[in-house]
Amino acid sequence: MTELTPNFNDKSPLYDQLYRYIVSQIRTGALAAREKLPSKRRLAQHLGVSLTTVERAYGLLTAEGYLESRPRSGCRVTPALTMIPTEPPPPPPARKVREQLNDCFSTSAVDTSVFPFSTWARLNREAVYQNPDLLQRGDGEGDWGLRGTLAGFLHQYRGVNCTPEQVVLAAGLEGVMWVLLQLLPKAVFALEDPGYVFLRRLLDNLGRSYVPVPMDEKGMSARALEASGADVAYVTPSHQFPMGVSTPVARRSELLRWAYGKERRYLIEDDYDSEFRYTSRPIPAMQGLDEGGRVIYVGTFSRTIAPSIRVAYLILPPELLKVYHVKFGHAAATVSRFEQETLRRFLASGAYSRHLRRAGNLYRRRRDALVGALEGWGTVSGADAGLHLLFTLPGREEQDLVARAARAGYRVRGLEEYCLREKGLPGTLVLGFAGLAEEEAAGAVGTLRRAFED
Amino acid sequence: MTELTPNFNDKSPLYDQLYRYIVSQIRTGALAAREKLPSKRRLAQHLGVSLTTVERAYGLLTAEGYLESRPRSGCRVTPALTMIPTEPPPPPPARKVREQLNDCFSTSAVDTSVFPFSTWARLNREAVYQNPDLLQRGDGEGDWGLRGTLAGFLHQYRGVNCTPEQVVLAAGLEGVMWVLLQLLPKAVFALEDPGYVFLRRLLDNLGRSYVPVPMDEKGMSARALEASGADVAYVTPSHQFPMGVSTPVARRSELLRWAYGKERRYLIEDDYDSEFRYTSRPIPAMQGLDEGGRVIYVGTFSRTIAPSIRVAYLILPPELLKVYHVKFGHAAATVSRFEQETLRRFLASGAYSRHLRRAGNLYRRRRDALVGALEGWGTVSGADAGLHLLFTLPGREEQDLVARAARAGYRVRGLEEYCLREKGLPGTLVLGFAGLAEEEAAGAVGTLRRAFED
Repeated sequence: MTELTPNFNDKSPLYDQLYRYIVSQIRTGALAAREKLPSKRRLAQHLGVSLTTVERAYGLLTAEGYLESRPRSGCRVTPALTMIPTEPPPPPPARKVREQLNDCFSTSAVDTSVFPFSTWARLNREAVYQNPDLLQRGDGEGDWGLRGTLAGFLHQYRGVNCTPEQVVLAAGLEGVMWVLLQLLPKAVFALEDPGYVFLRRLLDNLGRSYVPVPMDEKGMSARALEASGADVAYVTPSHQFPMGVSTPVARRSELLRWAYGKERRYLIEDDYDSEFRYTSRPIPAMQGLDEGGRVIYVGTFSRTIAPSIRVAYLILPPELLKVYHVKFGHAAATVSRFEQETLRRFLASGAYSRHLRRAGNLYRRRRDALVGALEGWGTVSGADAGLHLLFTLPGREEQDLVARAARAGYRVRGLEEYCLREKGLPGTLVLGFAGLAEEEAAGAVGTLRRAFED
Repeated sequence: MTELTPNFNDKSPLYDQLYRYIVSQIRTGALAAREKLPSKRRLAQHLGVSLTTVERAYGLLTAEGYLESRPRSGCRVTPALTMIPTEPPPPPPARKVREQLNDCFSTSAVDTSVFPFSTWARLNREAVYQNPDLLQRGDGEGDWGLRGTLAGFLHQYRGVNCTPEQVVLAAGLEGVMWVLLQLLPKAVFALEDPGYVFLRRLLDNLGRSYVPVPMDEKGMSARALEASGADVAYVTPSHQFPMGVSTPVARRSELLRWAYGKERRYLIEDDYDSEFRYTSRPIPAMQGLDEGGRVIYVGTFSRTIAPSIRVAYLILPPELLKVYHVKFGHAAATVSRFEQETLRRFLASGAYSRHLRRAGNLYRRRRDALVGALEGWGTVSGADAGLHLLFTLPGREEQDLVARAARAGYRVRGLEEYCLREKGLPGTLVLGFAGLAEEEAAGAVGTLRRAFED
């Protein structure tokens, strides 16, 4: 039997010091698995502490599984007790060189400095502390509170018509596509060309069928869509990615007519970038125009709150909602319930609206600064909304521009990178400005200009 | 120009009262979009407050986008300002009757009362407040810290051999399957029969191929697997769901030999329920036995922490890790970074190990109570590990037992519900005990017995 001789030397209760001492002895192996401990009475005598102190420490150790207690044979260290490693994990591998380029023109940048982080942190703390019941499994579609708040919000802000039942929450756009691909297992998807690379890669990864459909200055061409043979069109009418065009109401109607033309046709409206609009009132969502239940409305908070907040949502039309209930009866929500509740409070308190206005003002200034810096050099387009614009230098080779920018220390992307079959405008760069501070725009553009004209 | 006449009547600063008053006027429509506000000087005079007070209020309103300020023409209400709805969302629809049955025998129950919630809440608060940088997009695989901690933890606890690079985090088992289906787009899956209903539904939803492979008393039959023509077998060797068998080492070797027998064969080891084992030392994970890089190890925290904590993980063998890097280059993580960091702290502080031991003790007592209550009535099997057992009443009709239980107020599930092609043992119920308090076991079993023998 081991002699235990803790050194009582801090201000915490004696039983707690004894408890921690014995844990440390087990961790270091000084007390081995299966080893018998002194009886409570004997240890109390040996240490000169009360029996109660030893009883509380042993009780805690037993409750936590460090010790096993058997009637009439005392306590012993639990056999096969493995401990959590105390060494820190190895350091992460070095980053790739590409990522060391200045990425201020990234189209996925978000300036989180404008985000009211302390409000978010406070709401998160309250959401967690006040709701231990959120540990339990919730509805697969997400919790009712956030779904209802979101339905009201989207109605007010975007003219979306839906009940809370129609709202399904998902872990980012990945989670949204996870739901859609199960709801539409046989659909051939029409993708905007040029368009969002993630979708193309995803469908490639899964071996699913898709057809690229060309864009014109109003968005996806309804005639080309009709000719494509696709069943489901994925469109970004608020601010097309990457062309930056906003689809006018007449074209939206044409797209809806396409959807109504045949059973099981759907439009997926990714309302990406709809929150930021600089030259006119936002156009309400296509979903609000849809009388036939053929629009699936999709949005995320990755741009408007922060990239790491993995909450996105689908608004399912009634027919697909029925399919959802059949197919997802056993599914669990993919979004943490605590984060759902934090977001609900953020929306319902008005903090999100205030943040959108602040962020909109910031991004407007950044857009103005970048547009100003580019003035008199090339052509800017697609800058009426969203967080990126197109910049064209006719007669230039895109690859050459991208390479020259990289040599000058900047990472920029050419429009061709987003093209499937269509070729983009010649010599066109896709420049994001959400991560480009006003006071840096002129300098960054100046550097690019010298690099390009060198 | 509107007369503004706030009623200064609380203890907050005057500028804040003025700010809130103007917001309320805009919200109620008393101040309309585009309406001009009085000049700062004039309003200060009118209200008898200092110019600074009005300046601060107007400044805040402009920063938040309620007002637009133009040089030499003063402030006006922002045009097209839409407000967040202030009405609460409608109440949720009434629950289905089925869910009003006592679900204490649920196989997916988790007793979150044993979870150290205040520790979790504290770690969450610290993780959020100390890491505003976690708002930014992180690695698609998840953050290095948690991946490293998890690799060390799984090595110690489960004999898993991997580097942190091999760890990919995902939003629950849904997120895990999302990754696997993209890594293995053409694979035919072998599913345990009986087995986990979620997988079958998922593959059905996506139109993917699978074959049911029968179980024997050692787990999935390697011979049947060989004959099935499948490429990828999904197995639960720690505690098969729902049969409850643990696959012995000899059978694990046979399964590995099957995987080595042909290119691109993989075993997905879902180490579900491995944390709780009652009669002998846990068998190390199959992944640790695999010398050929053919085991994909999968686990979640849904049972061991809480169902709403949507963090699961895959350990990818090196060949598939290469495929992952190619296919998921653009993908974002599906797990909130704040929750990742909370979990990392929970693991690294030892709180998770302590919780596992406490929960293991609790579940052992509940298992003993349920096994004790069932003694002398029917046959219990599969109770050596995990959180459920099989209870067989030979000669009885399962549907009849389930219906009788429902009439007596309890929801129970029959084994047939989990079967694809194979038929389960006759008259067998799958009873979970994680949600059944010790002191309630005898009563609940007594009620079932009266209902069954009535």
